[in-house]
Amino acid sequence: MNEPIHPGLLPAGLADLLPHEAAFEAAVVAQLMARLAQSGYDRVKPPLFEFEDSLLAGAGAALASDTFRLMDPISQRMIGLRADMTPQVARIAATRLVRQPRPLRLSYAGQVLRVRGSQLRPERQLGQVGAELIGVASAAADAEVIALAAEAVEGLGIDGLSIDLTTPTLVPAVCRELGLDGVAEARVRAAIDRKDAAALERAGGAGRHILGGLLAASGPADRALETLAAMTLPAIAAREVATLAEVVALVRATLPAVTLTVDPVENRGFEYRTGISFTLFARGIRGELGRGGRYEIGFGRDETATGFTLYTDALQLAAPRPAPDRRVFLPAGTQPAAARALRAAGWVTLQALDDAEPQAEAHRLGCTHRLSPAGEPVEI
Amino acid sequence: MNEPIHPGLLPAGLADLLPHEAAFEAAVVAQLMARLAQSGYDRVKPPLFEFEDSLLAGAGAALASDTFRLMDPISQRMIGLRADMTPQVARIAATRLVRQPRPLRLSYAGQVLRVRGSQLRPERQLGQVGAELIGVASAAADAEVIALAAEAVEGLGIDGLSIDLTTPTLVPAVCRELGLDGVAEARVRAAIDRKDAAALERAGGAGRHILGGLLAASGPADRALETLAAMTLPAIAAREVATLAEVVALVRATLPAVTLTVDPVENRGFEYRTGISFTLFARGIRGELGRGGRYEIGFGRDETATGFTLYTDALQLAAPRPAPDRRVFLPAGTQPAAARALRAAGWVTLQALDDAEPQAEAHRLGCTHRLSPAGEPVEI
Repeated sequence: MNEPIHPGLLPAGLADLLPHEAAFEAAVVAQLMARLAQSGYDRVKPPLFEFEDSLLAGAGAALASDTFRLMDPISQRMIGLRADMTPQVARIAATRLVRQPRPLRLSYAGQVLRVRGSQLRPERQLGQVGAELIGVASAAADAEVIALAAEAVEGLGIDGLSIDLTTPTLVPAVCRELGLDGVAEARVRAAIDRKDAAALERAGGAGRHILGGLLAASGPADRALETLAAMTLPAIAAREVATLAEVVALVRATLPAVTLTVDPVENRGFEYRTGISFTLFARGIRGELGRGGRYEIGFGRDETATGFTLYTDALQLAAPRPAPDRRVFLPAGTQPAAARALRAAGWVTLQALDDAEPQAEAHRLGCTHRLSPAGEPVEI
Repeated sequence: MNEPIHPGLLPAGLADLLPHEAAFEAAVVAQLMARLAQSGYDRVKPPLFEFEDSLLAGAGAALASDTFRLMDPISQRMIGLRADMTPQVARIAATRLVRQPRPLRLSYAGQVLRVRGSQLRPERQLGQVGAELIGVASAAADAEVIALAAEAVEGLGIDGLSIDLTTPTLVPAVCRELGLDGVAEARVRAAIDRKDAAALERAGGAGRHILGGLLAASGPADRALETLAAMTLPAIAAREVATLAEVVALVRATLPAVTLTVDPVENRGFEYRTGISFTLFARGIRGELGRGGRYEIGFGRDETATGFTLYTDALQLAAPRPAPDRRVFLPAGTQPAAARALRAAGWVTLQALDDAEPQAEAHRLGCTHRLSPAGEPVEI
C-alpha cells in the first residue's frame, strides 16, 4: 500500500491552470482557431481516445511508446489516449471526409496526453492547435501552410518569428543514390544529428563531399539555397531543393519580415515527414512554438498532406498578456437590469451576496471599482 | 486475436465532430464561458487525469464506477481520467486557492470521459461547461448560480427555459425526524423514485401523510411553495422550504420569464447534494441541458459551495445555428494584402493552389463567392 497522497498533489507533468492563466490559454486557442477558420480551415474534433489500431496507424506509429493504452471494458479492445491529433485528423480525412473535394483544409484544437514527458518538455498533457492541407503536393500548398502557421502566431502579438525549413528526405535520397547500405546510412545519420563534420567525412564514403556540403549549407535561407544550387545532387534531391527554393520565395512574398533559415539535413522529430518540413521559433523564447511539414495520410489512401501543430503552452509564454479586466463590485440591492447594462458595456460584475460595506468588500474581492449609490462605477 | 477494425470505426459512445459541428460546439462553449466570466467567475483548468485518490474523493465518489482508471508508469500509482470536473474544481478551491477570499467564483470548460454511457446519454466523452460559487451558504448564492446558468443558456438564443428546483435533503430530514430505520427509509426512497403514492402510503408509517404531501406538492413553483408552506414539517425541513421560497423569489426577480417548477422529493442524480438543487430544460428539447446544486467541497475543508454543469452536446441541439460563412475563392495570383483585407472584412478566403478556372473551382470547393479580376467578391 502506498502512502496517501496530499490532495493538492498532481501526477508529475500535470498542472492546474489557475485564474488568468486558464483564461489566457483559452483566448490564445480561440484567436488561433479564428485565424485558421478565416483561411478556410474547417474545425474538426476527434475524440480523446480511439482504438489503438487506428490511433497508432501511419503517422501515429512514431508516438506509440508515448501513448497511454488500456482495455476498453465495453468493446473489449485496446484503446489509446491520443498523444497527437494529426493522425486523428488524417483518419477523418481518409474515412469520413474521403468524398469531400480536395484540397481539404481542416483545423483542430485539443489536449493530448503522453505517458512520459521529455527533458525539454516535461508536460504530459499538452494543448495543440493545428491545421492540415490535404490532397495537394505543390510548393504552393507547402507555402500556404507555413505562412498560415506564422501569421496565426504573429496574430497573437508575438514578434521576431523565425521559420527553420528542413528537407528530411534529402539525406536518405543522397544515401540511396550513393548506394550506402543500412549500417553506413545509420552512421551518416548519427554524424549529422551531432553536426559532426569530421565523423561525417569518415562515414560518408563516396558521398562524403555531398553530405558534408549539405551539412555545411545550414543557415540563412538565401545563402543556404545558393550553396545547395551550386551542388551536384541526385535528381530526386535536386527536385526537393527546387521545391524548397519555390517555398522560400512564396513564404517571403506573404511574410517579408519573417526570418527564414534552412537546415537541409535536420531529421530529428520529422521521421514521418515526406517533404518540406519546418519549425517555428520566436526571438527570446526558448524552444519551439510549433512545427509541421509534409506527410502521407495513410489509412490505405495514396494521398499527401501538409500541416502544422502549434503548442499552446509555448505560445502562452511568448504572447503578450491581455489587459486586466475592469471588475466592478455591485452592492446588495443592485437591480438585475443595471448589472446587465454594466456587463454589456464591458464590465465584469461581482454581485454582493450580503450587506457587507461595499468599499471594503470590493477591495477584499480584488475589484477595480465599486458601483456608487448613484449607479456609477467608482475606482477603488 | 480480434478481427482488425475498419479504420473509420470509433469505440461505442465516441464520435468525431465534423466541419460546422465542431466549430459550432466551440462557439457555444466560448459564448457560455464569456458569460460566466462577465459575472466574475474566473476560469480554471484542471488536468484530464489525476491520482484516483483525489479524483474520487468527496463528491467524486458518486462517479467511481464510471471512471477509467489505470496505472501511471511514472508515479506507479493509480490514476483516473476525469468523469466530472466539479470534484476537480472543488479540489483546486480547497488546496491551491484555499487562501483566496470567499466567495470564490470559478468556471471551467472541458471534456470528461466515462467508462460507460447511460441509456439516455450513450456518449462516453462529454463536454462540460460549469461554474462554482464557493464559501457562501445563503439563498442569495443559490439564486445567483441558478440565474447565471439560465442566463448563460438564454444567451445562446435558447427560449422556453424551465428550471426544476429540488430539495434533496428534505426526505432524509423527514425520515430522520420520524425515526424511520434504514430499511424503511430505503422503501420510502424507492416509492418516491417511482412516484408511487400507494407504495409510499404503505412504506411511510407515521410519516405517510407528510411524505405523501411532499410527493403531491410537485409542480409549478408557486403552487408547490403554497402546499409546502401549509404543511407541518420538521424544523430542518421547514428551514429548507423557507430557503427554497427565497431562492424562487430571487431567481424570479432576475428572470421573470423563466418557468420555475419544484419537485421537493426528487433525489436521483443529486446524491451528493446538500441543499437546493436544480435541473435546466428547454421547451421541445428532450433531456436536460444542465444541472447543479449545493454540496460540500470536501478535501478536509468544512466549506459549502453551489454550482452547475451545462452539457455542450445538449445545448448544441437546442441552440439556433449560426449563419453560414461567406467564403470567397481567391484565384492564383491574388496578392496577400488583398486576401488580408478581405479577411479583415469578415470573409473566409480560400486561396487557389493552381490555375484551375475560378468559377468552377469556387463552386467545387463550396465557396459562396469568387474574387473577380477587378478584386470584388462575386456571388457564385
